[in-house]
Amino acid sequence: MKSQSIGVIGLGIIGGVWARHYHEAGVLAGAWNRTAKPDFPKWLPTAEVVARAADVVQIVVADPPAVRGIIEQISPALAQGKIVVQSSTIDPAGSSEFKSLVEARGARYLEAPFTGSKPAAEQKKSVFYLGGAEELVRAVEPLLSLISEARYHIGDNRQATTLKLAMNLNISAQMQALAEALTMVRRSGVSDDVFFTAIKKNVSCSGLTLLKEPKLRAGEFSPQFSVKHMLKDMRLASRTQGCEDFPVLDTVRECLWHADQAGYADEDFAALIKLLG
Amino acid sequence: MKSQSIGVIGLGIIGGVWARHYHEAGVLAGAWNRTAKPDFPKWLPTAEVVARAADVVQIVVADPPAVRGIIEQISPALAQGKIVVQSSTIDPAGSSEFKSLVEARGARYLEAPFTGSKPAAEQKKSVFYLGGAEELVRAVEPLLSLISEARYHIGDNRQATTLKLAMNLNISAQMQALAEALTMVRRSGVSDDVFFTAIKKNVSCSGLTLLKEPKLRAGEFSPQFSVKHMLKDMRLASRTQGCEDFPVLDTVRECLWHADQAGYADEDFAALIKLLG
Amino acid sequence: MKSQSIGVIGLGIIGGVWARHYHEAGVLAGAWNRTAKPDFPKWLPTAEVVARAADVVQIVVADPPAVRGIIEQISPALAQGKIVVQSSTIDPAGSSEFKSLVEARGARYLEAPFTGSKPAAEQKKSVFYLGGAEELVRAVEPLLSLISEARYHIGDNRQATTLKLAMNLNISAQMQALAEALTMVRRSGVSDDVFFTAIKKNVSCSGLTLLKEPKLRAGEFSPQFSVKHMLKDMRLASRTQGCEDFPVLDTVRECLWHADQAGYADEDFAALIKLLG
Amino acid sequence: MKSQSIGVIGLGIIGGVWARHYHEAGVLAGAWNRTAKPDFPKWLPTAEVVARAADVVQIVVADPPAVRGIIEQISPALAQGKIVVQSSTIDPAGSSEFKSLVEARGARYLEAPFTGSKPAAEQKKSVFYLGGAEELVRAVEPLLSLISEARYHIGDNRQATTLKLAMNLNISAQMQALAEALTMVRRSGVSDDVFFTAIKKNVSCSGLTLLKEPKLRAGEFSPQFSVKHMLKDMRLASRTQGCEDFPVLDTVRECLWHADQAGYADEDFAALIKLLG
Repeated sequence: MKSQSIGVIGLGIIGGVWARHYHEAGVLAGAWNRTAKPDFPKWLPTAEVVARAADVVQIVVADPPAVRGIIEQISPALAQGKIVVQSSTIDPAGSSEFKSLVEARGARYLEAPFTGSKPAAEQKKSVFYLGGAEELVRAVEPLLSLISEARYHIGDNRQATTLKLAMNLNISAQMQALAEALTMVRRSGVSDDVFFTAIKKNVSCSGLTLLKEPKLRAGEFSPQFSVKHMLKDMRLASRTQGCEDFPVLDTVRECLWHADQAGYADEDFAALIKLLG
Repeated sequence: MKSQSIGVIGLGIIGGVWARHYHEAGVLAGAWNRTAKPDFPKWLPTAEVVARAADVVQIVVADPPAVRGIIEQISPALAQGKIVVQSSTIDPAGSSEFKSLVEARGARYLEAPFTGSKPAAEQKKSVFYLGGAEELVRAVEPLLSLISEARYHIGDNRQATTLKLAMNLNISAQMQALAEALTMVRRSGVSDDVFFTAIKKNVSCSGLTLLKEPKLRAGEFSPQFSVKHMLKDMRLASRTQGCEDFPVLDTVRECLWHADQAGYADEDFAALIKLLG
Repeated sequence: MKSQSIGVIGLGIIGGVWARHYHEAGVLAGAWNRTAKPDFPKWLPTAEVVARAADVVQIVVADPPAVRGIIEQISPALAQGKIVVQSSTIDPAGSSEFKSLVEARGARYLEAPFTGSKPAAEQKKSVFYLGGAEELVRAVEPLLSLISEARYHIGDNRQATTLKLAMNLNISAQMQALAEALTMVRRSGVSDDVFFTAIKKNVSCSGLTLLKEPKLRAGEFSPQFSVKHMLKDMRLASRTQGCEDFPVLDTVRECLWHADQAGYADEDFAALIKLLG
Repeated sequence: MKSQSIGVIGLGIIGGVWARHYHEAGVLAGAWNRTAKPDFPKWLPTAEVVARAADVVQIVVADPPAVRGIIEQISPALAQGKIVVQSSTIDPAGSSEFKSLVEARGARYLEAPFTGSKPAAEQKKSVFYLGGAEELVRAVEPLLSLISEARYHIGDNRQATTLKLAMNLNISAQMQALAEALTMVRRSGVSDDVFFTAIKKNVSCSGLTLLKEPKLRAGEFSPQFSVKHMLKDMRLASRTQGCEDFPVLDTVRECLWHADQAGYADEDFAALIKLLG
């Protein structure tokens, strides 16, 4: 069986890394980004041309409006046999809309949000949450396995988006809680050394604690994942039916909004600690 | 050098386990509990008699008023040479007060809150946060090492209480966030199997996630740590100077209060999930 | 100039009162309600028939999905010359959608949310917030003046919905604040007589204070405006662009949701006080 | 019967106005302020000297620690026959403590918080909430009636403080709600004229709405009542037993804290609107 080719639309922090992995594996048919990167491997002039050139189109852009824009652009190129793999973080409502648009053209749609930041992407350790028909999951497995260490078939497209939002809810609430706990002990005069030594023996220590420890200790907030993106995700979570009034979700979203307003939009979301004075 | 003897006041879930460990090690001089347990090893009729019988008195009761009550009762027995080790979760203001009361009698006061639940206590794996003078920490080290796997010298008495409250803030916020995330995916029809499989590959997975997974999956909320105790701790945290207006702390405290009002006071604080409908 | 006729769709607490006023004034051309009320003056078998029979169709139903359903039903009857007056509480996004649907049929659309409860409606003292073209406002003025004491031209259709949501935000937050203040003084043993005497001399006393005083004193929560409707409105407010992260809005919405979950959905939103224990 | 003399301790915005009213009425025996105001009528060098010179001592300072400081200073001058009228905003716990201290000296203690801002004070329209024995209330009535338009006997000293805190809770929550509602309509492009015209016909319009309208319209936040004082009061409210977990109280307190941290501590609490962007 001839292997499928893939096009990547969105060459940001993650999409760019993935596209290079695909290129190395010899399956990249095209790449496009809103801000032109003509030197990028397999760069093509428009998203539509990418969609024509590839069997599978993977989209990884900022938010639902950006996804909508891409799907409108590639729509003329979609037809039976094409597969759209949507990896941006969106909400169930957006996913339903985009799936309908793609299927109306005769193509197939797989929701494929992921977790893992840039280092994970570079080490081919992204984790995908796949939402769609079993045979569609199987169809893209060879491609996605080139860039990830695990691919979970979550259920349908809406369920995959929901699981991704739930994970980010968990992550952002942990970040704010850690920031409050650290600020509390700092105010009492306890050193960061003592705090992080103690938390590593505590049941609340997670991978996030270890990941953000250097940033919190140094007060260095270059973005691994930015305030503005997490704020966007938390707004999507709050729009998800049945989750409109979750207390910690509301609170963390408000904190991210304060951070955004205070000028920290492009900093890492660990910058939430700066609001605590 | 002759080894010191210890008395334990408060024979609840943790205090009872510790006292038996001390007894097995041959250092228990007395034990007392508000609700009489006359069959307990080295049971003595009053807290004061325990304090007379032992070199070191360890207090592990419910809250600051209970500690105050105990210290008033044992006060006549306190004198130079006696050491009070205070292991209940209290706040810095309470700690200052109790330290003054003890030192006014010529005795010494070590703040010694701990982390770790009943199974940890049984396996002698409690972790102590010690707050007091270096030589006092050294003086109780032989005794505390009989029941714990780590003893961190945090700083002074107020600092030790603050670190303990900060850890519980972190834990309770993680619990509420996990409850919201799980409810979110359940509402979309995703199974608990899928959720917990996915979270174990996620940066937000902590010891707490694994500890509470069985309770959340089974909807079984027998207490490892109760709603009412966590609510008490979060109120103490909110009274700590400089932490009065922490957003996630406020929110989690309100959730615990709702749970308390809804009749879940004596259930495990994982019962927070029941408020999400 | 021949006076216009009007049809009313939605004969609930307010719509029913308005329709009778129109009928008394001799301008009612038809009335319809999802739950049949065949004895109602000018009852007609379908919403579409009402829209055919009347120059102006006024819609006053529960929420955006209900409005959408009505507009789909009456769509075949809409044509040049017809005016749709939309008086349900909806959000700006819904208003844009409904205006487009109506105008696509050649008819005109006026957003006309109102304030004032049942007694106000009965006394023809409703207040309308009108959103649409100046000439359209003038066109419906003779009809709306039959049932209201004031009609403010707010601006466009989206603006009228926003102002209505903002007023309800203000009202629901005042209710929760009043409930907390009253509970606080009750817990200290102060009588309701003393509290309400004092608040009437206070700068915070509003019409709402006086309106809800009897309910709060008696613990009687038959609905003037129900928890579920206010919750719906606050969710719409939170979905309004630029208002996603307003702190008191979030908090009051969560309180209404707790009340809904606790079984108070159909009680007056003054029942918020019951959550305070 | 000879009329009583009064001393005023605390010559801030309100205390200074009252003292001048007392002086005009010929009953002022002494006045003192932490920051010296030697030109003030009846200025005396210490608080203690004021307490010696007057039958009744009225205290109106910033917060419980300031009251504690004053009571310690005047303690030697307190004796049978002296009355302390405490008009600062404090909490029930503080009130119990101060009452004990005063009565231990043989003097009597009346809790007398008030409402009404500077203009009200100038027009002798302050309103007092009196907490203490009936005969004590009667004893100070002639003096307090010189500076106020109403004096309500609320109950005991703790109850009077609670009612005051409850009123300020109501006021600050209304302010935040009004700020959110106004921001919401401003964002939709509706003018302040339209908003305030509409709200004046709305059930949510209170004296506070009218009082703060000019500040909100002009974006002018010179203090009638400052952010820092309202924050202090809301922290006292949250420490009041049974009110630790009130949702709108928590939220408004957090907003005031954000405002304080953003540099608005000395501005009017209407400056809360500046946090909404």
